[in-house]
Amino acid sequence: MDTDESNNKDVTLEQANADFAQVRVDIDSVDRQLVELIARRQKLTGKVGQLKAKLELPLYVPEREKALIAKNRELADQSNISPDLVEDVIRRIMRDSYANQDQSRSQVSLSQTKKIVVIGGAGQLGSLFVKLFKKSGYPVEIIEKDDWASANELLSSADMVMVAVPIRVTSSVIEKLTKLKESCLLVDITSIKAAPVKSMLDNHSGPVLGLHPMFGPGIENLAKQTIVVCEGRHADKAEWFIELLKSWGANLALVSSHQHDQLMAIVQVLRHFSTVAYGYHLKEENIDLDKVLELSSPIYRLELIMVGRLFAQDSELYSDIIFSNSENIPMIKRFLKRLMQLLQMLESEDKQSFSELFNDVSSWFGKHSDEFLQESNLLLAKASDIRK
Amino acid sequence: MDTDESNNKDVTLEQANADFAQVRVDIDSVDRQLVELIARRQKLTGKVGQLKAKLELPLYVPEREKALIAKNRELADQSNISPDLVEDVIRRIMRDSYANQDQSRSQVSLSQTKKIVVIGGAGQLGSLFVKLFKKSGYPVEIIEKDDWASANELLSSADMVMVAVPIRVTSSVIEKLTKLKESCLLVDITSIKAAPVKSMLDNHSGPVLGLHPMFGPGIENLAKQTIVVCEGRHADKAEWFIELLKSWGANLALVSSHQHDQLMAIVQVLRHFSTVAYGYHLKEENIDLDKVLELSSPIYRLELIMVGRLFAQDSELYSDIIFSNSENIPMIKRFLKRLMQLLQMLESEDKQSFSELFNDVSSWFGKHSDEFLQESNLLLAKASDIRK
Repeated sequence: MDTDESNNKDVTLEQANADFAQVRVDIDSVDRQLVELIARRQKLTGKVGQLKAKLELPLYVPEREKALIAKNRELADQSNISPDLVEDVIRRIMRDSYANQDQSRSQVSLSQTKKIVVIGGAGQLGSLFVKLFKKSGYPVEIIEKDDWASANELLSSADMVMVAVPIRVTSSVIEKLTKLKESCLLVDITSIKAAPVKSMLDNHSGPVLGLHPMFGPGIENLAKQTIVVCEGRHADKAEWFIELLKSWGANLALVSSHQHDQLMAIVQVLRHFSTVAYGYHLKEENIDLDKVLELSSPIYRLELIMVGRLFAQDSELYSDIIFSNSENIPMIKRFLKRLMQLLQMLESEDKQSFSELFNDVSSWFGKHSDEFLQESNLLLAKASDIRK
Repeated sequence: MDTDESNNKDVTLEQANADFAQVRVDIDSVDRQLVELIARRQKLTGKVGQLKAKLELPLYVPEREKALIAKNRELADQSNISPDLVEDVIRRIMRDSYANQDQSRSQVSLSQTKKIVVIGGAGQLGSLFVKLFKKSGYPVEIIEKDDWASANELLSSADMVMVAVPIRVTSSVIEKLTKLKESCLLVDITSIKAAPVKSMLDNHSGPVLGLHPMFGPGIENLAKQTIVVCEGRHADKAEWFIELLKSWGANLALVSSHQHDQLMAIVQVLRHFSTVAYGYHLKEENIDLDKVLELSSPIYRLELIMVGRLFAQDSELYSDIIFSNSENIPMIKRFLKRLMQLLQMLESEDKQSFSELFNDVSSWFGKHSDEFLQESNLLLAKASDIRK
């Protein structure tokens, strides 16, 4: 290369370096404006929250959310940027808006006259409901395990009693509730449903409702959270409470208590059981967790954190869920039988049968497997920009 | 309530309704500005990408990202909005920036003289590497299974040969590579490492490197993706390629090929094996998938989509991974033994031993379990604002 060319190259590089510094300054300025704009939007949605409470409108309106996102995707298209990017950003901002709107509700008291008692209201999930009832302006009393001596007066005047105690004591607590008002709505929030709902029906002649909140106590508000609802008796008398749950943003799924328990045997019991076994296996194999994490792509990291998270939680709660489901043992045995069937294929090096079985399962999943792949890819992309 | 009060209430409600409509108009206007600002930012980062290519700087610079996020969190704090919210938004926008910067690289050709051959370069993962090599200005040739007749000339002049074929044919392909130049860098990207690396060392006397890309072919660029690197021979002669991988944004993890296979027996083999068994179980139990999804909270939905996504993928690939790891059968047997140990506790209603075992595993996870719980909670929050 001759000297002239080399000089030219140096000048170009110098210019590129100067441009580079300038663009970074410009980006910083855009970021400042971006933060200001998000702050302005949060102020506006805070106002919306107060107005919604005043107008007695629900916190979460799926149609408005859908329309707003469609509009923003269109704007993105017009500005030649990715509609998916804009949708993700708007959804993330909205998530904070819901939380803020929920807080602003607390300042507005709806005039309600229902007297509510939460048994176990100092517990993790119980206290969440107590907080929500209070925010909506309901008078709430709590009964904890040392309060039974003075509980009768509270219970006999209650318009609604919620049982929020550990599974293993649910039955014995419900058996004490024989002196409720005929009109009192009796509700439980246990992870199994057939036994508690039957017990509530046996011990109380008024309206009965079984709930299974499909979330842990860590959440801040009910927006988009699923609650399974099993009707017991006099569903019309529970209508006000169902509406209240909806106004908190919850997503309600109605099933029979029997179907609930059957599905949960797989969704909860088998999942938790095999996760405990997997964690136990990792420990016994004494693998180097840090090394595994270092090697892990987002997908393996995700699978590992989903195992590990279980062990940061209450062993009693998970033991209760696993031990109390009446379908647990036969169902786990069927799962083990299938595991051994696959192991047999591995031992006899029968890769063909294994592939065929894999393909049979694929067909059974049908269009869902492609949907799941796409949805999990979106989520894994999000996992890579998670805060550490 | 008297008429006056009722009138007052009507006026207040009317005002609230008017305010409500106005605030929504204001929000729409903020959203428009937000989209414009994101578009402006993307243009600026596009420029950064071009300048980075010109200055031969890497795509992903962790320190700059860290500083930028810290600055934005501070801005959020000053504007009284959640720093987490702003960090999530900025990270999401940056994810698109990386993808765009990566595309803008393609317009710049680095002057390189290395001749690269990718065997299996038309395959899923092979073609990703071909695309990346080309973007960086390297001349790349592909050998597919019907090209062996004319392959010798290509191979004997190559400066680097990458083996990107299915596991089951990796050995037989490597055995054909006996006439490479002494200086040629031989690389494979198989999911197992001990056997292929040994085979490469046996058949080629020049530099050898084993890679295991810890991602599927679905990704758009390598930014933040992990690649496991197992050194074979003459690591110094592979330095240019390692630097190239880094410039693509990859995150490299160095282990021995033996340790790699041991860890993958658990991370990949057992995980895939039990996921296949779980999917098979769901099919045999013939559960109502739609009903389960309706009842699922984000966490159960996540676990279900992580199972279902496997079955949208190639059964041969997963069978190969499971069948080819030499530790597979004894390790799965140990896992089964532990599952049966837990089932035994369930059958004898020994909840106490179960809880104790749970707590032992918790202690073994140590601080990781709390970290995993926090990280997965962040991810689950993101899952709830995912695009459907």
